[in-house]
Amino acid sequence: MIRVLIFNEFIEEKTRENVKAVYPNGIHECLREALCEEFEVKTVTQDDENCGITKEVLDNTDVLLWWAHAGHTTVPDEVADLVHDAVLRGMGAIFLHSSHYAKPFKKLMGTSCSLHWREDGDFERVWVINPAHPIAQGIGEYLYIEHEETYGEPFDIPQPDQEVFIGAYEGGEVFRSGCCFLRGNGKVFYFQPGHETFPVYYNEQVRKVLRNAVRWCYNSYRIPEITCPHVTKPQD
Amino acid sequence: MIRVLIFNEFIEEKTRENVKAVYPNGIHECLREALCEEFEVKTVTQDDENCGITKEVLDNTDVLLWWAHAGHTTVPDEVADLVHDAVLRGMGAIFLHSSHYAKPFKKLMGTSCSLHWREDGDFERVWVINPAHPIAQGIGEYLYIEHEETYGEPFDIPQPDQEVFIGAYEGGEVFRSGCCFLRGNGKVFYFQPGHETFPVYYNEQVRKVLRNAVRWCYNSYRIPEITCPHVTKPQD
Amino acid sequence: MIRVLIFNEFIEEKTRENVKAVYPNGIHECLREALCEEFEVKTVTQDDENCGITKEVLDNTDVLLWWAHAGHTTVPDEVADLVHDAVLRGMGAIFLHSSHYAKPFKKLMGTSCSLHWREDGDFERVWVINPAHPIAQGIGEYLYIEHEETYGEPFDIPQPDQEVFIGAYEGGEVFRSGCCFLRGNGKVFYFQPGHETFPVYYNEQVRKVLRNAVRWCYNSYRIPEITCPHVTKPQD
Amino acid sequence: MIRVLIFNEFIEEKTRENVKAVYPNGIHECLREALCEEFEVKTVTQDDENCGITKEVLDNTDVLLWWAHAGHTTVPDEVADLVHDAVLRGMGAIFLHSSHYAKPFKKLMGTSCSLHWREDGDFERVWVINPAHPIAQGIGEYLYIEHEETYGEPFDIPQPDQEVFIGAYEGGEVFRSGCCFLRGNGKVFYFQPGHETFPVYYNEQVRKVLRNAVRWCYNSYRIPEITCPHVTKPQD
Repeated sequence: MIRVLIFNEFIEEKTRENVKAVYPNGIHECLREALCEEFEVKTVTQDDENCGITKEVLDNTDVLLWWAHAGHTTVPDEVADLVHDAVLRGMGAIFLHSSHYAKPFKKLMGTSCSLHWREDGDFERVWVINPAHPIAQGIGEYLYIEHEETYGEPFDIPQPDQEVFIGAYEGGEVFRSGCCFLRGNGKVFYFQPGHETFPVYYNEQVRKVLRNAVRWCYNSYRIPEITCPHVTKPQD
Repeated sequence: MIRVLIFNEFIEEKTRENVKAVYPNGIHECLREALCEEFEVKTVTQDDENCGITKEVLDNTDVLLWWAHAGHTTVPDEVADLVHDAVLRGMGAIFLHSSHYAKPFKKLMGTSCSLHWREDGDFERVWVINPAHPIAQGIGEYLYIEHEETYGEPFDIPQPDQEVFIGAYEGGEVFRSGCCFLRGNGKVFYFQPGHETFPVYYNEQVRKVLRNAVRWCYNSYRIPEITCPHVTKPQD
Repeated sequence: MIRVLIFNEFIEEKTRENVKAVYPNGIHECLREALCEEFEVKTVTQDDENCGITKEVLDNTDVLLWWAHAGHTTVPDEVADLVHDAVLRGMGAIFLHSSHYAKPFKKLMGTSCSLHWREDGDFERVWVINPAHPIAQGIGEYLYIEHEETYGEPFDIPQPDQEVFIGAYEGGEVFRSGCCFLRGNGKVFYFQPGHETFPVYYNEQVRKVLRNAVRWCYNSYRIPEITCPHVTKPQD
Repeated sequence: MIRVLIFNEFIEEKTRENVKAVYPNGIHECLREALCEEFEVKTVTQDDENCGITKEVLDNTDVLLWWAHAGHTTVPDEVADLVHDAVLRGMGAIFLHSSHYAKPFKKLMGTSCSLHWREDGDFERVWVINPAHPIAQGIGEYLYIEHEETYGEPFDIPQPDQEVFIGAYEGGEVFRSGCCFLRGNGKVFYFQPGHETFPVYYNEQVRKVLRNAVRWCYNSYRIPEITCPHVTKPQD
């Protein structure tokens, strides 16, 4: 059984009424609900010591989900380094919505990951541009999200290894909403939907994408540590 | 001076009143107008023998533009083969709008190049997703096109080597509207705007994109023929 | 169980003594041996009517392997078209060695697929450059092939979606020996080893790569036909 | 005239006799010699305050070359951040040889950039795999380097946007020796040759590659700072 770890900063669900109203137990509990029937799921938050992240925890994680927004800068660099290292050694990672600006995601991309944004609550259609991709299975032509924060291009990421979704917002913007990256021995998926004030993670299509993405990110191959070895001449 | 050849099938401008009204002298003449101040421009149409395309003509062409729609199937395979071969040997090529289904474009892509479409005359915003790209210079955030045929994803192309534009249509669809492909020794640009019943190629932003694209597609490197040579062991 | 179809032209095993000596029953029988414990395997050759390839046959194939050399030009275009269409609809395809010049491979790539070559029987080390890739599992640092025809760069293919192997030959050449391409709804793998006069497909490492590649190419998603549909405005 | 800045750590040329013997005035002076006829060249070293790197210096640099080895860890993080930021805003950057492990390169890649290595002084052939690429112009089939440190795969980098060279070493290893990356608004080229104990940067072919690479990396587009702007709904 694939072992999933959900990291949610768990800040605004406690400080903003309109977030608490949507996710009374935190976004992580809603995500857990979406995943727990198929996967073994654990959750950690920024309330946990060191964000609940240690090398041992990650060594026992197949796929990490990351949701963060208000707490990006207070995540210790050491935590970002641990996540970065675990992905390069083979762990899968899914970065959600405002986690485009999370330290470990930026560290994996090598770019600024900046974008344009607007918080109007417009609807979004998340179009499938690659219907054969494992992450798009069962989705149909697009996901429909009733209310979402608008993200706009240019999204400063390296050319994705595979693109799965492009979002179109009521207000007219477009955004590469589902992007796959192969980094080191690990697989990374960025998925744009999930603003904290809208019930996006209750949406059944969104949940299906998350489950598909966990399966896609999973990789049985994992190396214990990254080295830059001195080698001897190959002999046969 | 970069030598440009414009191929336009030149069919519907003679057979459909609403096309003739927009392009009385043919789309090729409008494209010529957009390019002739900066480049040396010639035009050919399907009225010319063998579409006006010979190996010699292409050997004297730096960048070919291709507009076609109603005449795809009546372009001889030999013409498509000549264009394909010239691109692989180093010629640049720009395929416009419905030329996604032109024989030489399909031959270069290796995929079906199919898409979704709807002819409502909705407006389109063609968003720049890569502002540093040479083809996007001087465009700003997006091109605005008052009326355009709607093209929708999935667009069955290989992952582009570089993506420059994503279009968003009034009706809600999205489309990878500006895509760069490196094939053999040549550079290929697909640009979606340009439905025959709307005056898209009079749009100054569109014309700037076309000029940028000609410069980007230009490559001074050209090989005389493609071979698969038997070689001897390297010696130094 | 994944359904594998092996196409081998089966020409030189009957006409050249040094090929017959290595593959007395044909390359296809040797490939079958490598795959039949794990997959359901059928074989066809150019002796079969229409190369044994029909739409129905391909609709019942998950992954096609293709070995060809002397018979490229005598494979009917219709057969190449059927294979091309099946891949774009979701079938996996593995092209082996001299099949870089097979009609369906060239049609999928859109490039000339030309390369440099030399037939010295030098050894080759096929280095794993992407150790986490499913096709490289269990291989170690490289495959060692005692005698192989030398293939050299430039290999005129589009930038692969993923690169798994780079070969280094005794004589000094290098070659992108294991390349993955996503085309339409299908997955394509090109694997360079397998010259007909050397017992390459008896090599256990090579056989492991082939089995890995079959699993990687498999895709449960398949569409019945390729269309370019007229659509109506999205409604929710 | 393209403004080039050469950063060389300038450590081993002062501390190791066998390096001093090859580059008595430092690697930067040899690189300057290779570039100064065509470009406006400045040099800085780790002896300069803050490595000679400030935002103002980089704002007046079109393309930065970076050579480093023994001093990676003593380059301040702030310097790496400045370089990283300048590339994302549009500066070109060329990382040479052991700079695969330089802080700004690793930060741009997002991966470990680890590799295999062996210091035997074997010869290397650096094969051109993309003869139409601007960086390969005038090189022929390969660069021949009489003595070089051996670098081996797997080289932990993201899939390059374009690959230009693959190196083959006397001892049998292969390495992606010339790789292009588009990051943010900037262009990055990694070039493997240039071990400090061998006179690689006196090689005329290597010098031609460096000049080609400077021209390729140059981009007239530059943004003053990276932002993640709140935007208003597009209006036309």
